[in-house]
Amino acid sequence: MNSHRAVSPPEPQSLFLRASLGLEVEQTPIWLMRQAGRYLPEYREVRKKAGDFLSLCKNPDLAAQVTLQPVERFGLDAAILFSDILVVPEAMGMVLQFLEGEGPHFSKPLTRLSDLDRLNLPDPEVQLDYVLATIRAIRRQLPAHIPLIGFSGSPWTLATYMVEGGSSKKFTQIKTALYNDPVFLEGLLERLVTAVVHYLNAQIAHGVDAVQIFDTWGGVLGPEEYRRFSLEPMARIVAGLNRQRPDGSRVPVIVFSKGCGGYLETIATSGCDVIGLDWTTPLAQARSRLGPGFALQGNLDPAILYASPQRIRSEVRRLLEAFGKQNGHIFNLGHGMEPNIDPNKVPVLVEAVREESRRIRAR
Amino acid sequence: MNSHRAVSPPEPQSLFLRASLGLEVEQTPIWLMRQAGRYLPEYREVRKKAGDFLSLCKNPDLAAQVTLQPVERFGLDAAILFSDILVVPEAMGMVLQFLEGEGPHFSKPLTRLSDLDRLNLPDPEVQLDYVLATIRAIRRQLPAHIPLIGFSGSPWTLATYMVEGGSSKKFTQIKTALYNDPVFLEGLLERLVTAVVHYLNAQIAHGVDAVQIFDTWGGVLGPEEYRRFSLEPMARIVAGLNRQRPDGSRVPVIVFSKGCGGYLETIATSGCDVIGLDWTTPLAQARSRLGPGFALQGNLDPAILYASPQRIRSEVRRLLEAFGKQNGHIFNLGHGMEPNIDPNKVPVLVEAVREESRRIRAR
Repeated sequence: MNSHRAVSPPEPQSLFLRASLGLEVEQTPIWLMRQAGRYLPEYREVRKKAGDFLSLCKNPDLAAQVTLQPVERFGLDAAILFSDILVVPEAMGMVLQFLEGEGPHFSKPLTRLSDLDRLNLPDPEVQLDYVLATIRAIRRQLPAHIPLIGFSGSPWTLATYMVEGGSSKKFTQIKTALYNDPVFLEGLLERLVTAVVHYLNAQIAHGVDAVQIFDTWGGVLGPEEYRRFSLEPMARIVAGLNRQRPDGSRVPVIVFSKGCGGYLETIATSGCDVIGLDWTTPLAQARSRLGPGFALQGNLDPAILYASPQRIRSEVRRLLEAFGKQNGHIFNLGHGMEPNIDPNKVPVLVEAVREESRRIRAR
Repeated sequence: MNSHRAVSPPEPQSLFLRASLGLEVEQTPIWLMRQAGRYLPEYREVRKKAGDFLSLCKNPDLAAQVTLQPVERFGLDAAILFSDILVVPEAMGMVLQFLEGEGPHFSKPLTRLSDLDRLNLPDPEVQLDYVLATIRAIRRQLPAHIPLIGFSGSPWTLATYMVEGGSSKKFTQIKTALYNDPVFLEGLLERLVTAVVHYLNAQIAHGVDAVQIFDTWGGVLGPEEYRRFSLEPMARIVAGLNRQRPDGSRVPVIVFSKGCGGYLETIATSGCDVIGLDWTTPLAQARSRLGPGFALQGNLDPAILYASPQRIRSEVRRLLEAFGKQNGHIFNLGHGMEPNIDPNKVPVLVEAVREESRRIRAR
């Protein structure tokens, strides 16, 4: 197709996949965490039809529709599956509710080793069939040149919800388990590793082009605890994924541990291709610490989308200029889109990333 | 008094002050953030007498009593003034309430430049006289060899509450101001710098031996924003403090920016003597990045106090062994004591710090 293409394995053509693998691109690809969501009026319309949040996740047609909305509206360089990380614990047998304004809730949190007997190892083709149906529906409608990103929560992050019973500020229950009952916690993490490997491999088999592991709560752990309870289970997942397609092409794996700028060297041992960064670690610093072997994803503070178009542009310029012409960068926010962001700010961001990155790369 | 004593300036004798200034100690001093608080039954008794939390802060006799409780019970190496960072915004004219189970609340948050006209510059001897009376009451009862630490919130941290109207998760209002109305935010920070300088100098004049600036929310900012909106106002405060007593002795200044392990080199430009660390940055790493010119305070995860006595001891040993025989370390938690911690765990911690640090230093 073009002169960059090697005989084997085939070089990907999409900006996102090329950047994920550190290949040259003419402009920096961009997608946004939580790009499908409440800030979009067309999302809120579909959500109304579906009923509650979990019903939307479980309706493949509607979930596919909201997945595609931001890609169509903004011309983003990747779609990300619309779903929730907590469908995995639910598929394992836990009773999940999303209480309006309060977030997720598990009615019977896990407290001890014997509670693990309540968990089953889900067959994604059965208990999570609706996710796989969503992936197929998206793939049918998404232009072939736009990659679809699948995802899962990290075992540690999933475990926090399963042990605390929902969102937490202090993580008292799970940290108590970590220090007093590591056999219980390790057993839970072990089951989650297996479940997530099956789940992500099923996502890959049904058509996602890349996967991201969201480790939202790794940053509440100290360095040794992060390594043992957050990173190590993620590394076992990465090792278990089918990352090579039959045609030899690679399915890149992104690891995003929020609040873990201090642990980048540890994250680098996970086996991932791409490391997600929040906005507290400059890209150039991350690159110099990690070397060119990892692509970087990030890392604008989502709050910058509250600023004026002019200010958004200047922040994008500053970020891209500081990283320069290096390969292996996927533009993203350092955290998800907020529900109260004006959707009209997104085209400003997308355009700024394209214009500025082309300008810098053309120098 | 002993051979370490120089003619001028006098060398402090207390472990805490010696460690703050990087001087040799025979064992590592320990105090605990929020050491006076709800986890202590004797605190809850006094709190009942006082009524609500703010009434306790404003009652010098009772506030002094709860300040002294943990020092007497556990033999800690320093007392910390019992108060709240939000008494400063209140003294500036804002209406502060502590709603049970909901945290602090300002009924009329600041939203624009003209709102700053509502703020006055408090005279600590008038609007904050109860804090100064508390300090005098503590100083009368505290043994002379135990230092008393005074404190304030950082301007950035105080501003988050004043602009958001209370605790926040996303900091939407203040970040919007940061990007869209920096003149308003800078004006607010400027007033807070002046108010805090006066406040901390009054604390020093009335008898505190050291001061800590609590920057609880610096970590929600990116590197450039942290430098401009959090660090720079703190540096102006440090520059404005009366750190030299008439006898030539020094009042050490501690800066603690939570979640800012990535910004230690920036914090080092603040002019402080001691840098507080949360549990995500190893002490030895901080020392090698900062050099021996700064004492370090921290940094056990408070959640370790949920563990068994044996485990607490082994975590303390690990932490102290990793830092070794170097001077300039004050043992503390990486964040405040939680209300549900068993007070009987504290003597285990204190004893472990003393035994292990003596053992390591005697080698």
